[in-house]
Amino acid sequence: MKLLFATGISLLLLTSVGTAQEAMVRITRSGSQPPAIGIPDYYTGIVRKEALFDAEAPARVVGGVVTYEPGARTAWHSHPLGQVLIISAGVGLVQQWGQPVQEVREGDIIWIPAGVKHWHGATETSRMRHVAVTEALDGKSVDWMEKVDTIHHDG
Amino acid sequence: MKLLFATGISLLLLTSVGTAQEAMVRITRSGSQPPAIGIPDYYTGIVRKEALFDAEAPARVVGGVVTYEPGARTAWHSHPLGQVLIISAGVGLVQQWGQPVQEVREGDIIWIPAGVKHWHGATETSRMRHVAVTEALDGKSVDWMEKVDTIHHDG
Repeated sequence: MKLLFATGISLLLLTSVGTAQEAMVRITRSGSQPPAIGIPDYYTGIVRKEALFDAEAPARVVGGVVTYEPGARTAWHSHPLGQVLIISAGVGLVQQWGQPVQEVREGDIIWIPAGVKHWHGATETSRMRHVAVTEALDGKSVDWMEKVDTIHHDG
Repeated sequence: MKLLFATGISLLLLTSVGTAQEAMVRITRSGSQPPAIGIPDYYTGIVRKEALFDAEAPARVVGGVVTYEPGARTAWHSHPLGQVLIISAGVGLVQQWGQPVQEVREGDIIWIPAGVKHWHGATETSRMRHVAVTEALDGKSVDWMEKVDTIHHDG
């Protein structure tokens, strides 16, 4: 046990300067994560979520992929430090509270500022898939609110 | 002027609680950003960068899309708070200092922890395009180092 410990220390000293022993580049392969169904309180319709990574402190980003079947969407919600959505497939909708609904397509990038109430999801006729990168504040990355009742395309 | 100011205040009071007046959801459309050529000191080959967004404080993420022509790559570098790469097209390579080269493909997500020396780029025969989301520390998101001389696929 002592020998194993000493060997561990030697290996540690042999690693490159400035690179912590456990800080490794992590690749999450497309389609490799078992999807979880979105909690019905927070979503309308069929939504699948795949966790991708949680950054180690001092970084505070968390990442995931979310797939919305046609007509599926989040409830109204906000993020304490904002969120980036990268639309990776399909056509979707995004709406900020008090603003018109906007259509988004594969390749579009959406920046949702801290504290802004909004929802996102698929259109009625297309699936939508996005990568979400969110900064967590003290481990919290979302505040859930009421469900979206009716979608008013005129805001 | 006073009336205008008073009207401004009234409008401010009429906006939704918890939503700052200027905090708006921002959509950056696919292909809408004029690309800039990557600075030759930091890249090998032809690299084009498109800025997507800079978050407002207290958030600290910045986002962009980078396209690498076949054989193009970054120099060795690290990020003070890490970086997320979302491969949006093609086939690429990623290497952490002292580790083997790894191939990445469309849909793969790469988490690069804070302070980890690494490079990324296209393969010799394929273009590669990624979205990069980076947390900036006091406005700084990257530390550039020496160029990658030869790619050793065995690490």
